[in-house]
Amino acid sequence: MPLTVKALQKTGPDQPFRVTTIERRDPRPDDVVIDIAAAGICHSDIHTIRNEWGEAHFPLTVGHEIAGVVSAVGAEVTDWKIGDRVGVGCMVNSCGTCLECRAGQEQNCLEGNVGTYNATDVDGTITQGGYAEKVVVNERFVCRIPEEIAFDAAAPLLCAGITTYAPLRRWGAGEQVDGRAKKVAVLGLGGLGHMGVQIAAAMGAEVTVLSRSLKKEQDALALGAARVLATTEEDFFRTHRGEFDLILNTISADIPVDRYLGLLAPRGVMAVVGLPPEKQPLGFGALIGGGKVLAGSNIGGIAETQEMLDFCAEHGLAAKIETIGVDEADAAYDRVVAGDMHFRAVIDTATFADAPAQ
Amino acid sequence: MPLTVKALQKTGPDQPFRVTTIERRDPRPDDVVIDIAAAGICHSDIHTIRNEWGEAHFPLTVGHEIAGVVSAVGAEVTDWKIGDRVGVGCMVNSCGTCLECRAGQEQNCLEGNVGTYNATDVDGTITQGGYAEKVVVNERFVCRIPEEIAFDAAAPLLCAGITTYAPLRRWGAGEQVDGRAKKVAVLGLGGLGHMGVQIAAAMGAEVTVLSRSLKKEQDALALGAARVLATTEEDFFRTHRGEFDLILNTISADIPVDRYLGLLAPRGVMAVVGLPPEKQPLGFGALIGGGKVLAGSNIGGIAETQEMLDFCAEHGLAAKIETIGVDEADAAYDRVVAGDMHFRAVIDTATFADAPAQ
Repeated sequence: MPLTVKALQKTGPDQPFRVTTIERRDPRPDDVVIDIAAAGICHSDIHTIRNEWGEAHFPLTVGHEIAGVVSAVGAEVTDWKIGDRVGVGCMVNSCGTCLECRAGQEQNCLEGNVGTYNATDVDGTITQGGYAEKVVVNERFVCRIPEEIAFDAAAPLLCAGITTYAPLRRWGAGEQVDGRAKKVAVLGLGGLGHMGVQIAAAMGAEVTVLSRSLKKEQDALALGAARVLATTEEDFFRTHRGEFDLILNTISADIPVDRYLGLLAPRGVMAVVGLPPEKQPLGFGALIGGGKVLAGSNIGGIAETQEMLDFCAEHGLAAKIETIGVDEADAAYDRVVAGDMHFRAVIDTATFADAPAQ
Repeated sequence: MPLTVKALQKTGPDQPFRVTTIERRDPRPDDVVIDIAAAGICHSDIHTIRNEWGEAHFPLTVGHEIAGVVSAVGAEVTDWKIGDRVGVGCMVNSCGTCLECRAGQEQNCLEGNVGTYNATDVDGTITQGGYAEKVVVNERFVCRIPEEIAFDAAAPLLCAGITTYAPLRRWGAGEQVDGRAKKVAVLGLGGLGHMGVQIAAAMGAEVTVLSRSLKKEQDALALGAARVLATTEEDFFRTHRGEFDLILNTISADIPVDRYLGLLAPRGVMAVVGLPPEKQPLGFGALIGGGKVLAGSNIGGIAETQEMLDFCAEHGLAAKIETIGVDEADAAYDRVVAGDMHFRAVIDTATFADAPAQ
């Protein structure tokens, strides 16, 4: 029997959020039912529901940074039991058999993974996200949240955490170069960047935050950065030429790619996880000279997401958040867009209790 | 006492070649004197001496695909002896102590390597290239040419060979994916591409040549390609979407980068060794989706150049060449620019004997 649960929903891109009820499917034998404790607000949620990434399927509930407790399991589920602390990120299904799925890269599933919201599920319905009381998810797309991390501080790890962890791991942020820590620059200090700084520092890198100004300097240092540099300083790109082994670009704005590649040492890597709206002009010479690498990265696989959660617990890392009630989502969106969130907004889903469904 | 040797020289970008004499330095204790047998014509020679890459230092002798025999060694040279078959590529010196040099990546020397021609040498003179009877080179920048490879077919390996070998090795062209050979596409079938096809196939890859037409199909198959695809065929980029694990782009023209990235499977790599004159528009989404990589590559280090020469000998590979006399260099240049060379022109320096110096 389907579950009726409260959720935050929009009926159109310009409509405010409303608390209403949605149905979650009757759990299949391989499903897990999760009572959601906290749901992070990711900038992708905003792009999607404001139709900035194409026409969304309304009415829609978004949210793919989900943390909570298992409240029921399907008959064939053996890895999860009632009471387990778990999280769900950007995917809720994939084919499970293609090369990418078998390689633990479900985000690249050759059949297409099923996104946590606004995606066509295997049963033809449109998936609904985590701004809700409960979610029903295939057991393969559930991760364990270690006891050390509170639900609200854990939720953003399921997207912002893995999105930054995966490229930092792939490109060896924690490896040594010539007997010293790698020099990692994190470009942008928002929801993604603030996790990238913490994770890179915990991996052992010497982390520099690159930002337009120094106004976030204290925050950056508290997160583990060794220093902050303002990219607007005179001669910035000349002064810091060849200085970094790895740049993690978390911003979604246009950037002078060639000049940033110039900040890399030979064989350096610029990993991009932020998606500028326009194409960026790239001089191949900026890549060829020094054998440099420009690498895209898109979240990460499920096993690596679990690895990331365990890594964060081991190193005492979590998202730095502002907790909000369900009635504050619209205001939070405006603050995220203004770059004014410190660093991630997370919806305390306990506040659904006091919000009558419309 | 400096050596006076015949060389092909231009006195300006629009001047024809002339046979004249140039001086080679008196060998230092760590120098090797090489009697040049063959010198390949690289497109870079043409770009340089026609001032297409900035103002060249005239009068100038170019050529950085050099093969010959050691005819004298400095007092401290122990690795080379008279009669050794050797080659010299794009570099003739580097600091030897920086991180890159110590890592065998002399091409990335942090002090700047000394190019084989048109570069400022450690003594302040301008280096002169291999279209000449002899060259004097620091012993660290000499490679051994295996007996199996003739001098003329070996010369282009010193540039075109290492330029394609290094990225194919770095990005694992010879590795298996899911129990099958990697699918490697080589874009362009000129001097670089014809070596890339041979080397990738010898590494074990399944090689596809991508070209504007099928007119080089027989050549490509003879070089080891499994097939040739014409990029101009209708719906090419849709039909072959996600098909390749690695693309080696050897062309120097503008290309639709995003569409080529679309030909890659998830986690695929596009390695670029060709330098288009203009910046190319790049959508970051084409990299982020599937976690793809765009990687520059610039020749390779000396140890890796030796590895490449040994690999070619082991697998029976060499450049496919047209041998020319010193009086045919101007005509050869025009044919290279027209894409009409099959596949590399190599100057037989024995023909200096019949050419009076002007």
